[in-house]
Amino acid sequence: MDPVEHLIALLSRLPGLGRRSARRAALRMLADPRALMLPLSDALRAAAEAVTPCGICGNLDATDPCRICANPERDQGLVCVVEGVADLWALERAHAHAGVYHVLGGTLSALSGTGPEELRVAPLLRRAEEGPEGGGVREVILALPATVEGASTAHYLQDRLAGAPVTVTRLAQGVPIGGSLDALDDGTLAAALRARR
Amino acid sequence: MDPVEHLIALLSRLPGLGRRSARRAALRMLADPRALMLPLSDALRAAAEAVTPCGICGNLDATDPCRICANPERDQGLVCVVEGVADLWALERAHAHAGVYHVLGGTLSALSGTGPEELRVAPLLRRAEEGPEGGGVREVILALPATVEGASTAHYLQDRLAGAPVTVTRLAQGVPIGGSLDALDDGTLAAALRARR
Ligand SMILES: [Zn+2]
Ligand SMILES: [Zn+2]
Repeated sequence: MDPVEHLIALLSRLPGLGRRSARRAALRMLADPRALMLPLSDALRAAAEAVTPCGICGNLDATDPCRICANPERDQGLVCVVEGVADLWALERAHAHAGVYHVLGGTLSALSGTGPEELRVAPLLRRAEEGPEGGGVREVILALPATVEGASTAHYLQDRLAGAPVTVTRLAQGVPIGGSLDALDDGTLAAALRARR
Repeated sequence: MDPVEHLIALLSRLPGLGRRSARRAALRMLADPRALMLPLSDALRAAAEAVTPCGICGNLDATDPCRICANPERDQGLVCVVEGVADLWALERAHAHAGVYHVLGGTLSALSGTGPEELRVAPLLRRAEEGPEGGGVREVILALPATVEGASTAHYLQDRLAGAPVTVTRLAQGVPIGGSLDALDDGTLAAALRARR
């Protein structure tokens, strides 16, 4: 296959780049391959070779355990459970969480056939069962998406964690800080109203 | 620098990808590096190594002369002058032109200090001066953008080509004022080319 066509086909598979932007990106890079094209090729290979899922939390990082799990200044007793690494990164950017994480790798879904075995549920239970006595987990915060699947996954995890020596909490639901009411979807509004205090 | 941060920084320099999409793209690729990340790394390197500007027309292709200049079924006497390779590719996608091309590499601009020496003007004049007698060019179609710079570049080229044994034509109206060729639909492009004057 023609190397330019092949490159455009692969670039257009990146989320956020359509065929048209992929063509534009290829052309821009080809005009001066040393500026971006070769560095990007190297960076893709380097990241692919260096980055692995953290054996403790499932974060993607160049070290295992990841820099969050290995950081003695993070509260290792406070574990925030997220659906995916994107959510973990979002919480990190927001400096919203002083503890550590556990990446589930998805949510339970009968529709797509995702059961507990497909997710990192068993490692979460093991972390929780060590409890605070073993220097382990004190609180598990379920920070799952406010969708049907997210809610049923949270319910499932609450059941499974009921016997463990940890407190299980969930993100508060409500109106986002700084968000105007009329930009919110109805479900969020209704939930915020129900949870009024 | 952290390989993931470095990758995101480079990805976000691609036209069309902001910081946010770059992060999403990096994450999607890292989840399964063999699927897209390593193939994309290879494709970037392969294209960077294989693709060169065509010595005749300035197109970017894996062969020199490019496949258009080397194609005996293209009308080598009909040369379409474009600002950049993106415009050439747009005309090719529209199947709008049966001849060959000449990529100027920009338009004249007093503001940005782009003079004739910065563009591939001299090679165009050489091609035109061979004329139809030498098996060369019969007609030069100026397919420059309908901007102030495009119009003054077209005027300048018409002057310089006045002594050459070729007909000089321009794209018909139909190209929207201020529009780049690359952004046009195929039908508009084809019509403008057919009605050239
Ligand atoms: Zn970790
Ligand atoms: Zn060529």
